Amino acid sequence: MKIAVDAMGGDHAPQAIVEGVMLAKQDFPDVEFLLYGKETEIKKYVTDEKNVTIIHTDEKISSDDEPVKAIRRKKTASMVLAAQAVKNGEADAIFSAGNTGALLAAGLFIVGRIKNVERPGLMSTLPIMGQADGGFDMLDLGANADNKPEHLVQYAVLGSFYAEKVRNVKNPRVALLNNGTEATKGSELTKKAFELLSEEEGINFIGNVEARDLLSGAADVVVTDGFTGNAVLKSIEGTALNMMSLLKTSILAEGVKGKMGALLLKNALRGMKSEMDYSKHGGAVLFGLKAPVIKTHGSTGPEAVRYTIRQIHTMLKTEVVPQLVSYYETKE
Amino acid sequence: MKIAVDAMGGDHAPQAIVEGVMLAKQDFPDVEFLLYGKETEIKKYVTDEKNVTIIHTDEKISSDDEPVKAIRRKKTASMVLAAQAVKNGEADAIFSAGNTGALLAAGLFIVGRIKNVERPGLMSTLPIMGQADGGFDMLDLGANADNKPEHLVQYAVLGSFYAEKVRNVKNPRVALLNNGTEATKGSELTKKAFELLSEEEGINFIGNVEARDLLSGAADVVVTDGFTGNAVLKSIEGTALNMMSLLKTSILAEGVKGKMGALLLKNALRGMKSEMDYSKHGGAVLFGLKAPVIKTHGSTGPEAVRYTIRQIHTMLKTEVVPQLVSYYETKE
Repeated sequence: MKIAVDAMGGDHAPQAIVEGVMLAKQDFPDVEFLLYGKETEIKKYVTDEKNVTIIHTDEKISSDDEPVKAIRRKKTASMVLAAQAVKNGEADAIFSAGNTGALLAAGLFIVGRIKNVERPGLMSTLPIMGQADGGFDMLDLGANADNKPEHLVQYAVLGSFYAEKVRNVKNPRVALLNNGTEATKGSELTKKAFELLSEEEGINFIGNVEARDLLSGAADVVVTDGFTGNAVLKSIEGTALNMMSLLKTSILAEGVKGKMGALLLKNALRGMKSEMDYSKHGGAVLFGLKAPVIKTHGSTGPEAVRYTIRQIHTMLKTEVVPQLVSYYETKE
Repeated sequence: MKIAVDAMGGDHAPQAIVEGVMLAKQDFPDVEFLLYGKETEIKKYVTDEKNVTIIHTDEKISSDDEPVKAIRRKKTASMVLAAQAVKNGEADAIFSAGNTGALLAAGLFIVGRIKNVERPGLMSTLPIMGQADGGFDMLDLGANADNKPEHLVQYAVLGSFYAEKVRNVKNPRVALLNNGTEATKGSELTKKAFELLSEEEGINFIGNVEARDLLSGAADVVVTDGFTGNAVLKSIEGTALNMMSLLKTSILAEGVKGKMGALLLKNALRGMKSEMDYSKHGGAVLFGLKAPVIKTHGSTGPEAVRYTIRQIHTMLKTEVVPQLVSYYETKE
């Protein structure tokens, strides 16, 4: 299998990206990597050339570029060339830590949607607290600003396929994010979506879930519109970051006593941080496209790149996308 | 001033409610309390009868009652009688820790909306991390499941009045919760709301804020639709609770070392917990009604009741509601 890598995307590119690829190469000797970007820059970090091809380009998309314009105008940008490679069948998946909006646009306009999937959604596997490897798949986390009820049903199908094939969850429990657990609760959008989800065959819809219960593992797949999903994800991240930094400040304010306490609790605090860190599950998938299109945080380091390559490897090996393509072909 | 108290609402009613009132009486000798509920039950906790009147009723609304039906059918329920007292001018504000939906219904149908405020919103003062007494006012936290752009402008005005008059914030910075900080970002709803907020005179609109930056104090007033607000609030609460319990588990798993560490960090951990606890700012205001209608958590204890009475006292003293009534009378 071949993975097209936008080596120039992200705050620490190309170093972090290429170093991550070098780590992943050890795990997956069956993967060929196509690295798009400045050859001289990339070469500095290539410690082993086996299964690595560098495709040189000087152009790249920056984080400030207006996404759709950038994709259309910067025709030789590393991200655009990587997406083209997937479109032309020269690669099976694309990975980037660059401009999220641009990657979404590249995914939609270059790689293309699965037939009958109207609005691909951004999906991440988020952590379940107290379960070291536990997680739930949530989408849409912000690929769309407005969604229709039908899109949420598509997210339920996409998420179920992912949880079952890629994360190996049997009969994944799908829930609708709502403002109450009762079936009658909700906005116009979620009430209608609840109805459609209840009628949808082939998914294990368990009803509504409230945002409060997400991290406790109330469901394996959570569907919501992209605006709400984005707000919820950022609320979780913001709260976690603020609490960690508050804890740090409180400990420092205690002086020597604080330092000693923190030393004794080093393992506990480290364990807590690691449970919150969901990069071990990989990056965010723009799901509903004809090939895996995966985004990680711009600040991503080599270890997170390695996890994301593992995720892409599993997605390709389990053929989750071709299976979705067949599923949706039979749909009217 | 007179406050009508639903003494039967909440998990620990009437004990927690009446004990809280007894505490608040010491702070505010100028307040008369009208306690609605079972006289014999309430009397057990009344340690000082001065400024306290008990209005006996056997009926109450439970947390399982369907809100609108309950308000219409249980005409002598403690919450309904308390709301009636406000409507009839026998009391100036109502306080309840009972069924949220029922209190919203009682507020809307019995107390009534301020003229020209279409959809009152639920507002709380949420904590800013690292500022002991800092907070920001956010609404709508879930009184409505669907909102129009115009409602968000009303929330901006309501929140500004509250921040300025009640919390004493000069020229409060109002922000729109959105999926990006750029002016062009957003859903159909937030794009239109951004436009209207930019044109609105008399508020200090500073643009968009992302959910990630709320707890760092990015704004003094944050407006959003009730569905998103509800999801964001519950995400923050869920993340905070999960992290605290994860920390506890991690510490316990460390055995003696964990216990010693926790002992040394006792103050730090307590300080962190207290910063997250926003009950010091009072309860949630159903804002946009002709009188203060305030709700606290069902699990509320006497201390939180005391804080909420202080909040109501400030709202009455500063005449924030009558000022809003005048403001909206001059509108159109």
